[in-house]
Amino acid sequence: MAQGAPVYYHDYLQLDRLLTAQHPKSGEDGEEAHEELLFIIVHQAYELWFKQILYELDSVITAFAGEAIRERDMGRLVARLERIVSIERLMMGQIDVLETMTALDFLDFRDKLIPASGFQSVQFRLIENRLGMARAQRPPINEAPYTSRFSPEHRELLEESETADTLHGLVERWLERTPFLEMGQFAFWDGYRSAVDRMLARERAAIEANPNLTEEGRHGQLAHLDSNEEAFATIFDEKRYQELRSAGRRRMSRRAFMAALLIKLYRDEPILQLPFRLLTALVDIDEGFMAWRQRHALMVLRMIGDRIGTGGTSGYDYLQETTRRSRIFSDLIEVPTFLIPRSELPELPAEVLEAMRFNLAPSGP
Amino acid sequence: MAQGAPVYYHDYLQLDRLLTAQHPKSGEDGEEAHEELLFIIVHQAYELWFKQILYELDSVITAFAGEAIRERDMGRLVARLERIVSIERLMMGQIDVLETMTALDFLDFRDKLIPASGFQSVQFRLIENRLGMARAQRPPINEAPYTSRFSPEHRELLEESETADTLHGLVERWLERTPFLEMGQFAFWDGYRSAVDRMLARERAAIEANPNLTEEGRHGQLAHLDSNEEAFATIFDEKRYQELRSAGRRRMSRRAFMAALLIKLYRDEPILQLPFRLLTALVDIDEGFMAWRQRHALMVLRMIGDRIGTGGTSGYDYLQETTRRSRIFSDLIEVPTFLIPRSELPELPAEVLEAMRFNLAPSGP
Amino acid sequence: MAQGAPVYYHDYLQLDRLLTAQHPKSGEDGEEAHEELLFIIVHQAYELWFKQILYELDSVITAFAGEAIRERDMGRLVARLERIVSIERLMMGQIDVLETMTALDFLDFRDKLIPASGFQSVQFRLIENRLGMARAQRPPINEAPYTSRFSPEHRELLEESETADTLHGLVERWLERTPFLEMGQFAFWDGYRSAVDRMLARERAAIEANPNLTEEGRHGQLAHLDSNEEAFATIFDEKRYQELRSAGRRRMSRRAFMAALLIKLYRDEPILQLPFRLLTALVDIDEGFMAWRQRHALMVLRMIGDRIGTGGTSGYDYLQETTRRSRIFSDLIEVPTFLIPRSELPELPAEVLEAMRFNLAPSGP
Amino acid sequence: MAQGAPVYYHDYLQLDRLLTAQHPKSGEDGEEAHEELLFIIVHQAYELWFKQILYELDSVITAFAGEAIRERDMGRLVARLERIVSIERLMMGQIDVLETMTALDFLDFRDKLIPASGFQSVQFRLIENRLGMARAQRPPINEAPYTSRFSPEHRELLEESETADTLHGLVERWLERTPFLEMGQFAFWDGYRSAVDRMLARERAAIEANPNLTEEGRHGQLAHLDSNEEAFATIFDEKRYQELRSAGRRRMSRRAFMAALLIKLYRDEPILQLPFRLLTALVDIDEGFMAWRQRHALMVLRMIGDRIGTGGTSGYDYLQETTRRSRIFSDLIEVPTFLIPRSELPELPAEVLEAMRFNLAPSGP
Repeated sequence: MAQGAPVYYHDYLQLDRLLTAQHPKSGEDGEEAHEELLFIIVHQAYELWFKQILYELDSVITAFAGEAIRERDMGRLVARLERIVSIERLMMGQIDVLETMTALDFLDFRDKLIPASGFQSVQFRLIENRLGMARAQRPPINEAPYTSRFSPEHRELLEESETADTLHGLVERWLERTPFLEMGQFAFWDGYRSAVDRMLARERAAIEANPNLTEEGRHGQLAHLDSNEEAFATIFDEKRYQELRSAGRRRMSRRAFMAALLIKLYRDEPILQLPFRLLTALVDIDEGFMAWRQRHALMVLRMIGDRIGTGGTSGYDYLQETTRRSRIFSDLIEVPTFLIPRSELPELPAEVLEAMRFNLAPSGP
Repeated sequence: MAQGAPVYYHDYLQLDRLLTAQHPKSGEDGEEAHEELLFIIVHQAYELWFKQILYELDSVITAFAGEAIRERDMGRLVARLERIVSIERLMMGQIDVLETMTALDFLDFRDKLIPASGFQSVQFRLIENRLGMARAQRPPINEAPYTSRFSPEHRELLEESETADTLHGLVERWLERTPFLEMGQFAFWDGYRSAVDRMLARERAAIEANPNLTEEGRHGQLAHLDSNEEAFATIFDEKRYQELRSAGRRRMSRRAFMAALLIKLYRDEPILQLPFRLLTALVDIDEGFMAWRQRHALMVLRMIGDRIGTGGTSGYDYLQETTRRSRIFSDLIEVPTFLIPRSELPELPAEVLEAMRFNLAPSGP
Repeated sequence: MAQGAPVYYHDYLQLDRLLTAQHPKSGEDGEEAHEELLFIIVHQAYELWFKQILYELDSVITAFAGEAIRERDMGRLVARLERIVSIERLMMGQIDVLETMTALDFLDFRDKLIPASGFQSVQFRLIENRLGMARAQRPPINEAPYTSRFSPEHRELLEESETADTLHGLVERWLERTPFLEMGQFAFWDGYRSAVDRMLARERAAIEANPNLTEEGRHGQLAHLDSNEEAFATIFDEKRYQELRSAGRRRMSRRAFMAALLIKLYRDEPILQLPFRLLTALVDIDEGFMAWRQRHALMVLRMIGDRIGTGGTSGYDYLQETTRRSRIFSDLIEVPTFLIPRSELPELPAEVLEAMRFNLAPSGP
Repeated sequence: MAQGAPVYYHDYLQLDRLLTAQHPKSGEDGEEAHEELLFIIVHQAYELWFKQILYELDSVITAFAGEAIRERDMGRLVARLERIVSIERLMMGQIDVLETMTALDFLDFRDKLIPASGFQSVQFRLIENRLGMARAQRPPINEAPYTSRFSPEHRELLEESETADTLHGLVERWLERTPFLEMGQFAFWDGYRSAVDRMLARERAAIEANPNLTEEGRHGQLAHLDSNEEAFATIFDEKRYQELRSAGRRRMSRRAFMAALLIKLYRDEPILQLPFRLLTALVDIDEGFMAWRQRHALMVLRMIGDRIGTGGTSGYDYLQETTRRSRIFSDLIEVPTFLIPRSELPELPAEVLEAMRFNLAPSGP
């Protein structure tokens, strides 16, 4: 430990660069608006965290792009995704700090920033693309593609990222490879389907036989049940599934969707615990960004009201619209619709259970 | 302090009642689902906090319903509204705890709860009504009024609360009484309007004279400006304001809206500091509930997917819809649209400034 | 789902009981102090959450008290401990709400509560005992045992809980059973000790050979190293370990401590991932309570200054003292002292690695 | 708005500088440790926020260093202090993110950083000095002054800051100038002292006359009362106050302390509302840093256990010690000890009340 040159905190963190990189526009020709520094620092802090998120995403994407993921790496990869969730929580906290600036304070320098806009965060757009946002998900901005707002160099970066591997695509492939969908005599889908059918039939019988229901009540409950059956039909019937997919309402392959369902249903088995946490982390990341977008839109509304944003978008409405469209792992978010109670779940055959256990089942840890 | 009977913590808090009030349904005929206790406790904690919110709201409503608010009470009233904001933050944290229950866990007891639903929280509906939610803001639930889901006794409570004073109505009246809109020679609205006109004219001239703009760029910026002018017209023109109001896009009277704008623009003056915090607290309360509703809707999606809720509503979609409609102080949220930079703001005449100061301007505090 | 009587939200949550259980003392003979309701509600909310924590603790204790823990239960048990951590975070948030009451407000009703005190929360004392707090850890309260402040019935409950199984004791036993400390030819302790010795020797040589160090610098670094060696000696030498234990500075057996170290060092292996999360959750629970106690003590200081608490303790100082003594899993918190870098870590032999893997190493999940 | 050169987000925020300022040491001679980037980024984010805190502190110090503070600036100054509190909350959140790095991960690069240490954050030391930390409050570090760990340039900066105006000193001066301590016939201190005497005498009589007390109980309650009287004596008796001050247990002048007490007791009066928020913000800032230090110390313990820190301090113990000593506004934190219930408080005479009101007492806002 003692050979290298001694390290000085200030140099290690490059603070000479970092702490001289704040240049308020309002100070250039007139009195500096007091609140502009906060505005700069909060955005710089965001960019630092975006760099960290990209770093974690890239490392996970690289691992998933390989042939197989080593069991012993899985915990670490999941932890990196969970770290992103934790950074998202911090991102929310940064809005609290920014909101200590009031709308009137912002007006003191807002006009100087035109046409710059948070929309132009290259790193944020890269995060979206790495996660798997499709160009079709992005609302056009004044009828031009979103890349039109970037410098040529950045535009190139963004376009490249649109054709590279995405976390969504790699997770889909990984799900499709799950060995547990069929294993020896065991076919997950058949057992699950039978269980669903049994459950629905029993519910129908119970409603029909229930002497306490009024005719209207019975009618209502049966309508419910029909709509439930209808939902299940969209996953049991390959053709209907593909229709949903063509309509953009499913994104993953049916096989990947089945695997995700299997993992959620049998998540207590040792071998599925980390995959379960992985799927949870992906949904958490997605929701973290959605929650942040919603909060950000509300903040914009507080700052500028219904005005047009510095970047020329329609401000709040635009942001609300992008929030709605911005989901990446929407399929995973739909999985709960198809869960059935543990009591209805077919038991796994012994050989499948065995394959899911550790070689050594210790009495201690 | 020494005369009363000694108090025992357990009795003071009525813990015998409180801690025996959890009766999981799943335990009644079969094995108790482990997670049902969490479900009960988190909802009970919500109800305790709703009681506290109602208590604070009632005290503020009572004060505003009187003839005039004593200056020395104002700080306390604002603090009570700010406390509600702080409780809302806690309400968000409770969702984090509830989300430690997974969708599969919930299925273990969900069916036992039908048709109970969080929708039936009387206290939450009372909070909405006290704040000023109009019946028209509530999406019908299976074509019946929202009260149809309550017991007769509760229905009565709710209907009563719909006709009582609301915080929205009382704040509107309080704003209308602001003495500073006209004072001696001073007419706020005239000065403000001139300032806006000057500002818009200057911006138009600058755009037209700017040699660096392409024809398209100029066109875009002028279109912007037009839309800005259009927005201002809706508040300057009484008739157009009333049209917006009839269309449900404004709720407060134009005079109240003007007063809110005045407070936001001159909030640094001593006498306006607490009114400014009051308006801020109202917007915070509104946004706190909106943020909580959004988060709650996401949580429901995670728990049950696209299914129908235990209460028979369409779950996530229904909750999203109610969130959108649930704003109470939407006028106040629109105020920032009409702020103008401090540098454009007409100075207040000396007699108005004087009236806004303390009798003693101390050199110390 | 349709046979039971329909459930009504209000009844399910027993709101008639819950919402009528707030009886401010200040209202009994005079005007009710506005803030007392908040005081009651926040404490009631704490008690609800304490009930939930006890419930989770009991379920984990029951599982660990059995002969062996089934692999498939492990994830769920860890999740229950992690839920406690999430509840602790909420408990911090409740202090934020309580702090919206100021010191002056509290004085309006504080004297009415004497001698009741949060100290008398039976559930909180039970949580401490279930976790494994020893009576010796509790500072005497006015020279009497802590139980002296409780009713006979509660005193009995507390005394019983002191002799029952504790989470600390059961986790210690579980750690001692770890099969991986010795397995075939493999002896973890020998390999680890050699690695430590090699590492320390190499560091010593590097310091001695470093031409860039002043005599003083070299002296300082060697003193460091000596103190490091000294620390390692306390775990390598059985006798010295037992001395620390007798002195109350170690609580777990040496074997349990070794197992905890093994788990932390090889946590990436599949079979150790959940045990690693378990140990992390225990430290998190401990630190969560410590952080809450510290925050609670600060809040008390804000409320009453240096006065004596309603319960007759010396207020802030007493609370600070209990915080310092309140650690349960102090051994686990010490484990990081003995970690060595992955690059120094002896590789596990193939048969041990194999035992730690899943039966099926899938290419997918 | 249209004349300046168009601003590009990336340039405005100087992202070329900011995002290339991360240089992990572990990558210099060997494989980069994955977690080092997080370590760098979290520290850089801290430094950005420290810059913001310094900026706010400087602006408040400048205002308080002037002859008098204009009423209309007061709200803004308080808001800046409250912003610091909000940044402190964010700082806590950043520890949550850093703790996603485990102790074992940190060991992968920790040795490369010696002897750099967070202790060497110049900005953090400047914040302490600006707030008013005295050199005597800083525990010596290996028997050398704290400045010994800095470069000559930074040492100079720190030494300069020790002789400059501090927020503590300026607030003390501002408190001393309070006109309300004596005003015409009114002498706050006399009235307050009589009220305290009356209150204590009444309590003594009540205890002595209480037939329900055992001899032991009476003895205990009287002992309480004596200790209370003793505490009040330290503020009523100038000499005893000065003794406490010499002993380092009071820092502010007695006059300043009296003013702080007056503000806390009569905080509902319009003119005292902002001063009350100011005092609250100062205590909040102090406690925010204390809470962060405590949390930081716990995190260090988790990361390195009882080892010596990279900077050569004794790690956790050192940090705990600095936390204990680090209070700045300890006098303000003691004020609650001397509050008395509103019902005991002498009423302010009409002319004082009048001086505390606004010139115009409006019926509206």
